[in-house]
Amino acid sequence: MTNPVVVEIRRGSLVESRHRGSIAVVDSEGSVALALGDVDALVYPRSAVKAMQALVLMEAGAAEQFKLDDEALALACASHGGEPGHVAVAERMLASAGLDASALECGVHWPSHAASAQALARSGHSATALHNNCSGKHAGFICAASALGVDHRRYVEPVHPVQKAVKAMLHDLTGVAVPDEHRAVDGCSVPTWAIPLKALARGFARFGTGRGMAPGRAKAAQRLRAACAAHPWHIAGTGRFCTAVMERFGDRVFVKTGAEGVFCGAIPELGLGVAIKCDDGAARASEVAMAGVIERFVPLGDEDRTALGRLLHPTLRNWNGIEVGAILIPNPTGGATPSDA
Amino acid sequence: MTNPVVVEIRRGSLVESRHRGSIAVVDSEGSVALALGDVDALVYPRSAVKAMQALVLMEAGAAEQFKLDDEALALACASHGGEPGHVAVAERMLASAGLDASALECGVHWPSHAASAQALARSGHSATALHNNCSGKHAGFICAASALGVDHRRYVEPVHPVQKAVKAMLHDLTGVAVPDEHRAVDGCSVPTWAIPLKALARGFARFGTGRGMAPGRAKAAQRLRAACAAHPWHIAGTGRFCTAVMERFGDRVFVKTGAEGVFCGAIPELGLGVAIKCDDGAARASEVAMAGVIERFVPLGDEDRTALGRLLHPTLRNWNGIEVGAILIPNPTGGATPSDA
Repeated sequence: MTNPVVVEIRRGSLVESRHRGSIAVVDSEGSVALALGDVDALVYPRSAVKAMQALVLMEAGAAEQFKLDDEALALACASHGGEPGHVAVAERMLASAGLDASALECGVHWPSHAASAQALARSGHSATALHNNCSGKHAGFICAASALGVDHRRYVEPVHPVQKAVKAMLHDLTGVAVPDEHRAVDGCSVPTWAIPLKALARGFARFGTGRGMAPGRAKAAQRLRAACAAHPWHIAGTGRFCTAVMERFGDRVFVKTGAEGVFCGAIPELGLGVAIKCDDGAARASEVAMAGVIERFVPLGDEDRTALGRLLHPTLRNWNGIEVGAILIPNPTGGATPSDA
Repeated sequence: MTNPVVVEIRRGSLVESRHRGSIAVVDSEGSVALALGDVDALVYPRSAVKAMQALVLMEAGAAEQFKLDDEALALACASHGGEPGHVAVAERMLASAGLDASALECGVHWPSHAASAQALARSGHSATALHNNCSGKHAGFICAASALGVDHRRYVEPVHPVQKAVKAMLHDLTGVAVPDEHRAVDGCSVPTWAIPLKALARGFARFGTGRGMAPGRAKAAQRLRAACAAHPWHIAGTGRFCTAVMERFGDRVFVKTGAEGVFCGAIPELGLGVAIKCDDGAARASEVAMAGVIERFVPLGDEDRTALGRLLHPTLRNWNGIEVGAILIPNPTGGATPSDA
């Protein structure tokens, strides 16, 4: 099937570009509140399931053993911008397990936060694995391995106990098989297993409510959500969508971006989980689509609406700051929009 | 109509993302050699028509008056990476007209070439308008204004004689009306007029062959193409697609990228022009689609084929250098691929 256009890029009087995609909003039993496009298609969730991966860290007892605070737990769920504060927390997590950046197997890239990258270069230093947007997750994997009493080395391999536990966790939360034939390698070298979009949404409904989860697991999920709600800057960073949403909505809305146009989230008060995949992999579209889902489902006060408006209708400005266009959810056409309510 | 999938992103055993788009390959009379998707749709050509914009500079006599060499003419057609060599040529162009960077109205952004951006920061300097990818084009506009004997200030405005000449040039080459109701503002603040994709391809068939153009204009186009073929690094930069294609094919293939998934080009020996628009605006897709067009139409030797293969099937590697996927033109399914020949 051809997925609907979920987000448009306007410039002048015309639509310049179009993003198609699929959106699933379901409860913890899998009952569908919204299904746009092919919600049964297999999707690599990429970084959108970092909070589920972090449940392994919680269940290994690493949070207690290494005294990981809420900033650290949020960073374990993060795709961060490599800002100095992110780097410091990742370093602290590793230090608590008696290790340093050399234990990280995520690879090196420069901070995605431009000002931090420029400041790093200006200081005469270069990027390290701590600046990798996944360094908090990886520090968490390493802490998990240590807490489990296994060698942390090669923790990115599918046969490592930590990744086996991640696979079992994804199976438990989404309720579907997670076969290795649908396993690929993520940008940071850990496995990513493809999961039907609707099942991914169901997994986040469970993650957001604890329903359908063992009590200890539900409690661990609750602690992770609380950590992210309390420290939204640590889950993404300055100027980022996930941070803006959770700064505004706190524990009412959990959202997490993934590469290639994936976005997942949970709306605990409504018992709903959300999974979005933009066909073409564009983050600018999956973000606006997620804002559309929030607008459609979450009861909003005036300030909520103002804050959300900036995420729902981003203005495109050029290098001179001139407004040249906008990113929009298209007008209602046969249910092709998540904001047609 | 729904445009076909022209490029796929594969990861592991699955297609992770899909890019739809339209492709027009036509001759200078508008006869169609290839039409995929809606080739009548209006498209903002953005930076893909910089060479047509540079014809205004040529016809104003600025190349002679200011002794612009082939590097400068290539830079006038460029979306460059802001590498030191690009900046130096833009500065030289302005100096030849007795001006400096303060005359540029393109706005400031950091070099898109990452190593150059890092080196700039490390040196303690900040980005200037000279680092803007469009600085060569803008220096060209300023030289054109000076050669025409008009005030260069506000040369980005639609009412400025330089932009009026650009509009007339686009009309002449594409053979279609260029109404101001389809005019928008580009990233560098100059006007961009939406043009049907097929007409854009026709314009490039003319640009590449001189057919259907006044003799002086045809000669100016030939000189610009020769300058780009001789200095392909100046039209884009290190590691860039346009540079790689023209380094390999010289004056046999002219290609130029534009923002939002636009790609234009000419194959003079076949009398063909090419215009591509990726629906979602992704450069990674428009590049591979252009490589597909080259593979399909241009007679290739073994070395051509090897060089083109790297552009046609880019490997996706993660931060550890591990091969995790590929960008591909999908297998032939009802003509949905430009490489099904």
